[in-house]
Amino acid sequence: MPRVVVDVMPKPEILDPQGKAVLGALPRLGFSGVTEVRQGKRFELEIAGELTDEVLEQVRQMAETLLSNPVIEDFTVSVETPAGTPAGTVA
Amino acid sequence: MPRVVVDVMPKPEILDPQGKAVLGALPRLGFSGVTEVRQGKRFELEIAGELTDEVLEQVRQMAETLLSNPVIEDFTVSVETPAGTPAGTVA
Repeated sequence: MPRVVVDVMPKPEILDPQGKAVLGALPRLGFSGVTEVRQGKRFELEIAGELTDEVLEQVRQMAETLLSNPVIEDFTVSVETPAGTPAGTVA
Repeated sequence: MPRVVVDVMPKPEILDPQGKAVLGALPRLGFSGVTEVRQGKRFELEIAGELTDEVLEQVRQMAETLLSNPVIEDFTVSVETPAGTPAGTVA
């Protein structure tokens, strides 16, 4: 069954208090070398049937109307590879 | 500046009320064809300096101790491509 991933992130110009909290906690836990953290949402959608351009366009509309707030958030729609791990995953 | 992405998702055997709420809302908004929705978190970390295996191992430790709850969540660590869009992104 094809899986589509929608990533929703706060726009760069929008304050991100959750990301700031993580960034502030890292040195206290002994981690260094991270200069910026942004926190967003990830949605994994299982699609019934074939993954056509039409279906992807529908997912894009879901992302715009339900999954994100376009005023303060950006989203990307990606298709997960059949292997079960997203392309670009390390280890 | 290299960017590392940590995706945190509820484990398959864990109930996901947020995902269920989204799944329930889709038909009311006129969308069909989605059989399952899982909602998780996405963290984008900007790294100072080079992206070595050591740094990635540190990020994995951050993911395990701070960004996720390993009892109920799985995480993946991936490196974002220099182009700025994650590999596998559609359109």
